[in-house]
Amino acid sequence: MASRELIVLGTASQAPTRHRNHNGYLLRWDGEGLLFDPGEGTQRQMLLARVAAHDVHRICVSHLHGDHCLGLPGVLQRANLDRVPHPLVLHYPASGAEYIARLRHASVFHEMIQVREEPSAAAHQVLAEGPPYRLESRLLDHPVEAHGYRLTEPDGHRMLPAALAARGIAGPDVGRLQREGRVTAPDGTAVGLDEVSEPRPGQVFAFVMDTRMCAAVHRLAEGADLLAIESTFLDRDAALADAHGHLTAGAAARAARDAGVRTLVLTHFSQRYTEPREFLDEASAFFPGEIVVAEDLTRVAVPRRAGARPENPRGSGAARGYHETPGPQGVSEQTLG
Amino acid sequence: MASRELIVLGTASQAPTRHRNHNGYLLRWDGEGLLFDPGEGTQRQMLLARVAAHDVHRICVSHLHGDHCLGLPGVLQRANLDRVPHPLVLHYPASGAEYIARLRHASVFHEMIQVREEPSAAAHQVLAEGPPYRLESRLLDHPVEAHGYRLTEPDGHRMLPAALAARGIAGPDVGRLQREGRVTAPDGTAVGLDEVSEPRPGQVFAFVMDTRMCAAVHRLAEGADLLAIESTFLDRDAALADAHGHLTAGAAARAARDAGVRTLVLTHFSQRYTEPREFLDEASAFFPGEIVVAEDLTRVAVPRRAGARPENPRGSGAARGYHETPGPQGVSEQTLG
Repeated sequence: MASRELIVLGTASQAPTRHRNHNGYLLRWDGEGLLFDPGEGTQRQMLLARVAAHDVHRICVSHLHGDHCLGLPGVLQRANLDRVPHPLVLHYPASGAEYIARLRHASVFHEMIQVREEPSAAAHQVLAEGPPYRLESRLLDHPVEAHGYRLTEPDGHRMLPAALAARGIAGPDVGRLQREGRVTAPDGTAVGLDEVSEPRPGQVFAFVMDTRMCAAVHRLAEGADLLAIESTFLDRDAALADAHGHLTAGAAARAARDAGVRTLVLTHFSQRYTEPREFLDEASAFFPGEIVVAEDLTRVAVPRRAGARPENPRGSGAARGYHETPGPQGVSEQTLG
Repeated sequence: MASRELIVLGTASQAPTRHRNHNGYLLRWDGEGLLFDPGEGTQRQMLLARVAAHDVHRICVSHLHGDHCLGLPGVLQRANLDRVPHPLVLHYPASGAEYIARLRHASVFHEMIQVREEPSAAAHQVLAEGPPYRLESRLLDHPVEAHGYRLTEPDGHRMLPAALAARGIAGPDVGRLQREGRVTAPDGTAVGLDEVSEPRPGQVFAFVMDTRMCAAVHRLAEGADLLAIESTFLDRDAALADAHGHLTAGAAARAARDAGVRTLVLTHFSQRYTEPREFLDEASAFFPGEIVVAEDLTRVAVPRRAGARPENPRGSGAARGYHETPGPQGVSEQTLG
């Protein structure tokens, strides 16, 4: 199992189908799990995807339409039943607070878990500041207030084996150098992290649900390694998409291309289309990277980043042998051109 | 498709499994549909069972634990999306009103359907007085106020072909006789319904969810043609069943036997048991009739009643050739000994 992956739990907009449950997306990010938009039935889809309630640490709700939130009671009650020991942090647009209150207390149970609500009240808000990541929300353009989410890993360093060998640094000293930023070499001189490593930009994940095209889509998606984005409609129904506050596969693909996205996950499909291939064909005409037309229980790895100044030629398989580690620095957004 | 059947949508207690969704039971009763205990995911289970939102006329919630009601928002919102033109009548224990209010308004939508709430406030309440049926609720014994439901068809008449022929009554006159109770024979004499028919006791369906054994279980189940009843535990865990306010398969079977039930549907199984056969074996030791250990999407026909004074021997296949029709009389409960 990839340590950073998106597990798609459901892919239907508005109403489920025989093959598509309502929305639900679990992002595994090292030891953490972020659950986005738990639609009805997410509790059971988690089971089918072998995701436990213990695997969820944060829940991010884009907006309070039923297909994006009616699974919240079940997820919380399942966490309660399983006595999840860590707090569950819950993000949502602050204007939806009354609905969240109803969802949290929709049926009789004794709440024993800790649920910490941290709603977004602003058009742009930093919800968590890493490590292990920065999490931000941005206001989108939908008939109901909707927020997109962006998760940015702090930049790190990729150790350069030749440089380490030249200074005689090996074994536990490598780890200490990564943690503390400097170490004493066998010859008694100080060695800084920058001398034996190259910067490794952090990975970026973006989650963009129900919205018309707007500037926030571009800000959320900028340089994302993995973008999960609604594509309810196809371009031939662009007027309908606009009327209902949604995107088309073509519009999502053009935005992803302009933002330098690496892997594009299309989801939230209208029932009017029966052939998923149409979404792929439309998006492929604009977006040059990997495209995943999501099915329920699809798993998509967050693609690893190459270094900014690779020791080996960019794209060489040998580059994957590098030690990778997040660095001690602050968080900044990275863009791959 | 049988015109009177129980469509089992889900069978898991507390938490769903890979093969069992949370509760959900659709009783088709001629042209009407009664949905009992819509747990989370019922909307999608309906789809899998080919039940449309239009097929639901009444929703009966036994109690406000999540596995019996968290699917209510989805069912109502789907009915709204599909513009169901008839009112949806909603029954539940009146003490759960605040939860019902949250469930009805758990997420943002413009309600355009008619939902008529008719909660049960008493230990025994008649919720609807037929034809086509009488519907009653009775207070059960569970840590949260829970109600069972019983549906009784008005008694009818089964026309006797030989008697009809002897009086020369045929064609549209048969229907008129059934509707109006008497008709003029070709010889000019009046013929009463009783002269050319025999009484046909109405069918009875009972729904008994979360409860300890109590008198109400017997009253609900008395003479039922079809009883759907929880059997969360097996007799070997009777102490656990009692502690949590539940039944065992053995207890359910003994009650069904004593009440003269014809077909017994066991459901609402604890995850602790992995072998459904154990429920069947335990119930079979006590109950002589048909036993169905429910699986999701199981369909069980309401067994047809033989007449009180059959023209053919009881149980003969030929008896099925009778015209069956509900009569114009009032409703009364029937018991098969």
